[in-house]
Amino acid sequence: MNLDRCSINSITLRSAGLPELIETALSRGVPGLALWRDVYSESGAAAAARDVRAAGLRITSICRGGMFPAASASERSVIAADNRRAVEEAHEFGAECLVMVCGAATDKDLSGAREQIEDGLRVLAPYAEQAGVRLAIEPMHPMMIADRSAISSLTEANDVVERIGAPNLGIALDAYHVWWDVSMAAQIQRAGKSLFSVQVCDWVTPINGQLSSRGMPGEGVIDLGAFVSLADAAGYEGLIEIEVLSDRWWSTPIEQAIDAALDGFAQI
Amino acid sequence: MNLDRCSINSITLRSAGLPELIETALSRGVPGLALWRDVYSESGAAAAARDVRAAGLRITSICRGGMFPAASASERSVIAADNRRAVEEAHEFGAECLVMVCGAATDKDLSGAREQIEDGLRVLAPYAEQAGVRLAIEPMHPMMIADRSAISSLTEANDVVERIGAPNLGIALDAYHVWWDVSMAAQIQRAGKSLFSVQVCDWVTPINGQLSSRGMPGEGVIDLGAFVSLADAAGYEGLIEIEVLSDRWWSTPIEQAIDAALDGFAQI
Repeated sequence: MNLDRCSINSITLRSAGLPELIETALSRGVPGLALWRDVYSESGAAAAARDVRAAGLRITSICRGGMFPAASASERSVIAADNRRAVEEAHEFGAECLVMVCGAATDKDLSGAREQIEDGLRVLAPYAEQAGVRLAIEPMHPMMIADRSAISSLTEANDVVERIGAPNLGIALDAYHVWWDVSMAAQIQRAGKSLFSVQVCDWVTPINGQLSSRGMPGEGVIDLGAFVSLADAAGYEGLIEIEVLSDRWWSTPIEQAIDAALDGFAQI
Repeated sequence: MNLDRCSINSITLRSAGLPELIETALSRGVPGLALWRDVYSESGAAAAARDVRAAGLRITSICRGGMFPAASASERSVIAADNRRAVEEAHEFGAECLVMVCGAATDKDLSGAREQIEDGLRVLAPYAEQAGVRLAIEPMHPMMIADRSAISSLTEANDVVERIGAPNLGIALDAYHVWWDVSMAAQIQRAGKSLFSVQVCDWVTPINGQLSSRGMPGEGVIDLGAFVSLADAAGYEGLIEIEVLSDRWWSTPIEQAIDAALDGFAQI
């Protein structure tokens, strides 16, 4: 794929600050960035958004809101306030969506966690709509269910989106999380215009930890070309993010990592 | 659960030989064993089966056949021959089923791997039926798709069982592999009398490798009581295997490991 369809997610170059991310995008001809919130936690969203705007870059997503399930009402209230802040930050950037990492079960009660997630999204969606922000539920790989998200499949995420029925609630589709699913093609088609974000990385084994064992596009066994084609056929017209959480690549010099990321992207 | 419903899978006590497994089952009041094929590879299945029969124990499963996908016809032929041997071994033991670990994609062609799996099962099922052996497809956790099985969900396994429609083809249901699935309850109900084996262990994080990072029942976050109840409600009447692949427990003295396994089982 041509790099004019690329967005670099900040976590791929975890040690880079915003100036370096902007410089990388500009020098490589990449039109978009996706930002984890830690990237601008010191400068604040407003100042960071000015820098991004001055560089003429798109912000494809802000990562993340969510993490809804909690044991007590007071914890849930703290989480809800943080989610409203995330919405406001996404608004500052004019981000194309705010990614929802919905949260794990806090005990053995998975269905209870799922109810809390849905309740939380129902409350946050209209708040985000007023701010002109789209919320993108990211179904996460089932190996991350006990620490990141009880929403473990695209089918489940589509179900939630349809049940809530908010116009600004959709899907963040990451190949890493859904590629194993025999119903992936049908569920991408079903998501259709609800696809707010599409992300790529690759599946490499062995899995060293459920979070950060990923590969750059092309390093693993996912047919990313077919994956992106499915999203396109479903009506997705946005940029494709490279989001690679990898202990291995994080310990590699940034220049090497970005070379690998963009070379892999070009070959999708 | 009472131990009279328990079967100990040999991999839980990986360093134990068959005599030690038999002695453990008898001394603890456990009526069943499940055997990985390496346990009897030296003695041979016939001699091992005599020892098991003399002890009055049930063999709930033999692990494993499967691993169907391969790049060439000659490799597939070698695999098919090994699968027929596995059927014959399961027959020797009067095992209640032969577990099918169906095999991974050998390249980026997941749907091709799935076709090879289904083709392989269609050929093996009648052979097994003549030997009076039931084949149990084990849907495996999606994190194992690139090394163990392209059958990644219970839905998919049920689909395969129904499409092939052989009376001796069913499901090996392991809590570890399916507990994340929002449709688990419905799919267990759907499997019904096709449930040939039910296995328990627990989900503990972090995941150190996709294969052997599991916990003893009760160590993790799976609601195993609810899980077994679902299998029972669907009509399963067999023993419940404790199958725990764990680098941590494998490096613990066997007596300690069996104590932990059976204490956990008793509390389900």
